[in-house]
Amino acid sequence: MKNINVGIIGVGVVGSATALLIEENKDIIKARAGASIRIKKGVVKDISRTDKRVKIPLTTNIDDVLEDDEIDVVIELMGGIDLAYEVAKKALSNKKAVITANKAMLAYHRYDLQKIANGIPICFEASVAGGIPIIKALRDGLSSNHILSIRGILNGTCNYILTKMSNESISFETCLKEAQNLGYAEANPSLDISGMDTAHKLLILSSIAYGIDAKPEDILVEGIESVSQDDIFFANEFNYTIKLLAIAKKVNDEVELRVHLAMIDKNEMISKVSGVMNGISVIGDKVGETMYYGAGAGGDATASAVVSDLIEIARSKSSPMLGFKRSLESGLKLKEISSIESRYYIRLKALDKAGTMAKITSILGECGISIKMLLQRESTDKNYATLLLSTHKSNEANIKKALYSISKLEVITDKPFMIRIEG
Amino acid sequence: MKNINVGIIGVGVVGSATALLIEENKDIIKARAGASIRIKKGVVKDISRTDKRVKIPLTTNIDDVLEDDEIDVVIELMGGIDLAYEVAKKALSNKKAVITANKAMLAYHRYDLQKIANGIPICFEASVAGGIPIIKALRDGLSSNHILSIRGILNGTCNYILTKMSNESISFETCLKEAQNLGYAEANPSLDISGMDTAHKLLILSSIAYGIDAKPEDILVEGIESVSQDDIFFANEFNYTIKLLAIAKKVNDEVELRVHLAMIDKNEMISKVSGVMNGISVIGDKVGETMYYGAGAGGDATASAVVSDLIEIARSKSSPMLGFKRSLESGLKLKEISSIESRYYIRLKALDKAGTMAKITSILGECGISIKMLLQRESTDKNYATLLLSTHKSNEANIKKALYSISKLEVITDKPFMIRIEG
Repeated sequence: MKNINVGIIGVGVVGSATALLIEENKDIIKARAGASIRIKKGVVKDISRTDKRVKIPLTTNIDDVLEDDEIDVVIELMGGIDLAYEVAKKALSNKKAVITANKAMLAYHRYDLQKIANGIPICFEASVAGGIPIIKALRDGLSSNHILSIRGILNGTCNYILTKMSNESISFETCLKEAQNLGYAEANPSLDISGMDTAHKLLILSSIAYGIDAKPEDILVEGIESVSQDDIFFANEFNYTIKLLAIAKKVNDEVELRVHLAMIDKNEMISKVSGVMNGISVIGDKVGETMYYGAGAGGDATASAVVSDLIEIARSKSSPMLGFKRSLESGLKLKEISSIESRYYIRLKALDKAGTMAKITSILGECGISIKMLLQRESTDKNYATLLLSTHKSNEANIKKALYSISKLEVITDKPFMIRIEG
Repeated sequence: MKNINVGIIGVGVVGSATALLIEENKDIIKARAGASIRIKKGVVKDISRTDKRVKIPLTTNIDDVLEDDEIDVVIELMGGIDLAYEVAKKALSNKKAVITANKAMLAYHRYDLQKIANGIPICFEASVAGGIPIIKALRDGLSSNHILSIRGILNGTCNYILTKMSNESISFETCLKEAQNLGYAEANPSLDISGMDTAHKLLILSSIAYGIDAKPEDILVEGIESVSQDDIFFANEFNYTIKLLAIAKKVNDEVELRVHLAMIDKNEMISKVSGVMNGISVIGDKVGETMYYGAGAGGDATASAVVSDLIEIARSKSSPMLGFKRSLESGLKLKEISSIESRYYIRLKALDKAGTMAKITSILGECGISIKMLLQRESTDKNYATLLLSTHKSNEANIKKALYSISKLEVITDKPFMIRIEG
């Protein structure tokens, strides 16, 4: 039986879980891989701070792995962008297969790596949605389809906060604090809360689906900081759930990529993905809608994906990294953010004065935006009124223009807030 | 660029959809497969009755495909068991890769074929849950896990009927008739309704998860014919949904395989799979629960799976047919049906007489079964009472014994009915 030697660079939460999984499940891995897997070395910053249950030789020198001719596969779990990219490049140029869970690095360098790899396997199932095999689903399972759209709940921290706000009528700040206490959110939660972590993952998925190259700064990314109980009240009133969605959508010869809060009809499967769980709905031209659900984070779930990649490499079946050998859907372009179309939900806070409604609605009318539903809510302070409304289909440019004009009205006291309505 | 020549045996609904998909999506298939796919021949029973949109050379002689040295891949979509098995064997012995959607044939012959294939690719994603890539998820995506359990809603006909009964309070017979009118159920629906179609699929999934060999007649298979509005009333009362579930579960060194009606907590994701849709929940020891959802039938969705297999073969990455090269979890045995443990829901119809309840509960007590919830419902005929109850955990042997004894009581007027409660 074949032997596969592995080096792990970065033995933190996921690295330790990977080492333990390879040991604990070695029999089933051997059966499925047709090979014995041995972790020859792990690279850490500080040997004394490594999980004591991990019984592998440790070093602090990355080159001990990259320059070791006996090592067949490098598992990069160090995080960060620039150094991780250098490590992956050097591993590939030394003919070592690479497995990475590093979504930020892939958000910038996935096309560079596919070019450099030139047939050497590079796998990244763990980079999106933890243990859910969504990379393989897109690359292999749905490979005969044109992908019409992807809608993903890809960040457990955000989904936990939104679910809790919805179920318990408490504020964003209180939910965030609780998420931090439970370890679901980092001390500095901005990468999650801002939507940027979700954006990294969306860019990876959209490369497989569309072969489209974009960087995080090219796409629409909004976070969840501004969501309030008023929004949740409205959503419930009209049978919606509020989620942070990653959306990739083919519209004629363009692809929309965007990350933002969205209201989704409660009858849709994806609206039922709650708490820290992740879920991805994919619509293919032939298969229709399929959905994938599971734990999007955590050491064991992520290690499950890392080791499934290792088994794939051991079986020596590796498809091209992004699942295609010629350019996909050639001619597809990234859609301009300003021309994206959607329905919108808008929340406004205004002085409770005669003529306020007329001013607001005439701005909307001038911008070509028509109202579908409107709800006026009493504010705690009776001098103010909260207006909640949803629109018929409009586009980003018009909505931005209208909200800017509305925000300049003297009667408007708070910055207008908007959520897109999906589906 | 490589050319792959394909022969399709059986150009009915799925075969036609496959031929059309290969033509319509040829650009994206070429990009993803790194090869050009050409359908060289299709085999049909009656050329005049073949879908006119399908523009491929047709023949009525299977050997025109099996003996054609230029054909690389045989797609078997003819159905039936014995002849289909002979066709697959002959294709493999002529060194042709095989793709099949034939679940009944695989339920009997999957191990024979894995042995005969001996490295030649044989793929069957389309045999379970149509377009949902559940075979690849188990074989590749979750390959590092011990699978703790699989729970699948694998038959759209049954799920449509159960969903409709639940939503509209109408009888089984009425729902079945409507399913037949809509084309969701066959004129002879027994393969679906009896649970046997679900059992075929369960046997395929459990081979990948556990490497366990069993035939349909070795496992517990029950259908949905006996479900009534009383059951649905009870389920709603206690927050359950009634589904036909395929269950594979590892219990120590045994595996339970069973197909039957089950009540599932409405909060579980799998309970939300409604109408004709399919869904599969898989729990791995490392990844936790993942779930897969989509269309389980229909020409296009099934063709999506067939052609994804074709792309996999063209990429020349093929893993062993059932995803393992050595025996999996050696020592695992099929669990005896009688020792399966579950919670149970029981429906009884009895004469409304003093002492009836005492007789029933004393039988349950003697069999070691304890009651968790009990509901007595008025019958339309006031001389009778309907008793609905759920039990704490018990096992099949005790439940069967108790129901037999209860059925012999003079006060019992109808055959006792039971549904297992999952999760």
